[in-house]
Amino acid sequence: MNSLLDLGIKAKAASKELGAASKDLKNKALVSIADALICRKNEIIEANSIDLEKGKQAGMSEALIDRLCLDEKRILGMAQGVKDLCDLEDPIGNVLEEFTRPNGIKIKKISVPMGVIGIIYEARPNVTSDAAAISLKAGSAVILRGGKEAFNSNLKITEIMREAIAEVGLNSDCIQLVSDTSRQSSIDLMTLKGYVDLLIPRGSAGLIKAAVENSTVPIIETGTGNCHAFVDSSADIAMAADIVFNGKVQRPSVCNALESLLVCEDIADTALPVICDRLKEANVEIRGCEKTCEILNYAIPACEEDFATEFLGYIISVKVVKDINEALAHIDKYSTHHSECIITKSEENAELFLKSVDSAAVYVNASTRFTDGGEFGFGAEIGISTQKLHARGPMGLKELTSYKYITYGNGQIR
Amino acid sequence: MNSLLDLGIKAKAASKELGAASKDLKNKALVSIADALICRKNEIIEANSIDLEKGKQAGMSEALIDRLCLDEKRILGMAQGVKDLCDLEDPIGNVLEEFTRPNGIKIKKISVPMGVIGIIYEARPNVTSDAAAISLKAGSAVILRGGKEAFNSNLKITEIMREAIAEVGLNSDCIQLVSDTSRQSSIDLMTLKGYVDLLIPRGSAGLIKAAVENSTVPIIETGTGNCHAFVDSSADIAMAADIVFNGKVQRPSVCNALESLLVCEDIADTALPVICDRLKEANVEIRGCEKTCEILNYAIPACEEDFATEFLGYIISVKVVKDINEALAHIDKYSTHHSECIITKSEENAELFLKSVDSAAVYVNASTRFTDGGEFGFGAEIGISTQKLHARGPMGLKELTSYKYITYGNGQIR
Repeated sequence: MNSLLDLGIKAKAASKELGAASKDLKNKALVSIADALICRKNEIIEANSIDLEKGKQAGMSEALIDRLCLDEKRILGMAQGVKDLCDLEDPIGNVLEEFTRPNGIKIKKISVPMGVIGIIYEARPNVTSDAAAISLKAGSAVILRGGKEAFNSNLKITEIMREAIAEVGLNSDCIQLVSDTSRQSSIDLMTLKGYVDLLIPRGSAGLIKAAVENSTVPIIETGTGNCHAFVDSSADIAMAADIVFNGKVQRPSVCNALESLLVCEDIADTALPVICDRLKEANVEIRGCEKTCEILNYAIPACEEDFATEFLGYIISVKVVKDINEALAHIDKYSTHHSECIITKSEENAELFLKSVDSAAVYVNASTRFTDGGEFGFGAEIGISTQKLHARGPMGLKELTSYKYITYGNGQIR
Repeated sequence: MNSLLDLGIKAKAASKELGAASKDLKNKALVSIADALICRKNEIIEANSIDLEKGKQAGMSEALIDRLCLDEKRILGMAQGVKDLCDLEDPIGNVLEEFTRPNGIKIKKISVPMGVIGIIYEARPNVTSDAAAISLKAGSAVILRGGKEAFNSNLKITEIMREAIAEVGLNSDCIQLVSDTSRQSSIDLMTLKGYVDLLIPRGSAGLIKAAVENSTVPIIETGTGNCHAFVDSSADIAMAADIVFNGKVQRPSVCNALESLLVCEDIADTALPVICDRLKEANVEIRGCEKTCEILNYAIPACEEDFATEFLGYIISVKVVKDINEALAHIDKYSTHHSECIITKSEENAELFLKSVDSAAVYVNASTRFTDGGEFGFGAEIGISTQKLHARGPMGLKELTSYKYITYGNGQIR
């Protein structure tokens, strides 16, 4: 805890310098980071190879090894991501509201940095540069606590970034990495009250749960997505098949991928085969309700838990529902409030769905895969919030800021 | 916990009805509450007399008895407060942003209710109607957990409000009171994950700390205010004396009251007597640094802890500082990030102070007592946030809402 407290103290001090930094200085720092990542890519690849070796020895799955791996192309991608932030509008110092009260005091609501942002994440080392760069552009110091599997990669990337920002005159403590990767160091970061203004856990449901249960600093829950598609009786079935296929198959491991399909019973006989045959061909396992299993001979009977599960893989739960109301009730029961979509030609049902579904992003006739900072045009993203406080859905630069009220008077008292 | 879970389930269900309620229905419910409070004021006074009797028997201080007491005038004030909410703009269903992406999907960011708001508060029974009414207008069901001292009053007020909203057709479970006033019931409410979307603790520093440490539901910290005034070398000393007197004496028990005075050494000899003699006349105890004690023979030596204390009474800590930079460093060390002010004629120092002080509200030449929803023109207030996440400073209707993204497509996939 002592060394983490030390990090916190340094981050708080650095955050004051960074909070006062000009847009130009921040952009210069971003360019410096991007250049250094490219220039020193061999050092990163070398550090990464140690992590890969350890991972292989520990019997890590191929999918995890792939996430962990950094090659030249990926490092260039990381650098480009950092550089792209320069083009985005500076989110700090904007006048959000301005009003004068009857007593003459003039109040301005101004966007300000959070201060210190903590990020806890798992095996992807590219998050290290992504999270540091977006926090920097948002004017906040960052304390990174990455997974132990990627520790050598993260350490090298952090070292490069710290040196790069120091070169342009920024305090290198704006970017710090927790060097202890024990479970306890996560808990310590979650309770670094007074030094961390916002903590964002990114990763597995277990990590999010631990953060919710242990944090005393403000957190934003991210990422758990048990996303639903409801195919209404009036749906264009070919469109439904496209949207469901895209939601489930294009990238099954991400939070906005589709996990559950609801089909109105009026069209189930026709729609289910059209939609699910394509999924089956792509090796998606169909876990269906009784009616689904009657219609599709390749469906496996679903249990209750299947409808509550974020599979993050080639499995989908399928249920035939009586009508939109049963679909809404089912979504209300099982959704993690991330993203849901309806495929329908009925304007009335579309509006009912949009109004009733209590999720961060609700779609009519489009894939849930669009819940993403890039797809929304935010230019950068630090995660997808599934809570209602502060930010909901994709979090870009603006969602990483706070505000304060500054007030001009000439002696007013109450 | 079982009965609280039951409250949570009922609140969640009721919140869906309330979230879909029209502005007119919500306003009708508010009028119904206001009318019922007036009409049944004798019942409230009777219930309140039981609490007062118990309080007196338990040796409650006069100040607390006064906070607890409800007479006809106060009940009319509560009713008026509820009715006044009708005039405010409905915060739900507003299009906050709207954009069309290159692929043709049209995204709208819409303000939506939080869902279920929990409020934990202490002895003031008027909070019961205030908090319920503002939550209702903001479209959220509320679970109230008031102090045990006011239990009979709170129970009666809640009963009246529940009946009043049922009369206009709203689900009475939109307003519920936790009937168990043990410490455990507070903790249970703080951990009612999945049923409480936002918890606001209102009251003592101890309550806020307990909420921070125990909550697994999202919370907003409120109210601790170690507020500072800095009298710069160029200050109008008469103005400074007015602002400091107002900040300390007008209502010392509230969070935006002044607790600490910093004076630039260049003018300390002249300014301190002018400012502090008035405070002394009003029976304010001056706890000063060494230099202050040299200048004011009635000042008592301050210890380190005095500068960190929110006195909430007739005590003020005073320190002579070298310049604005020492003032900023002192504020940075001791402030609770609520409200601070500078009294100065220097535009440069004013801007430096506004930029550097990391507090919810920062003032130039005006009293910190203005940090208040009413004074800011919000029309209603549920508390003053001292955190940076979601809301900062006075929280009105808008700060009690969330948002969601609704998206219209015509078959778009990634």
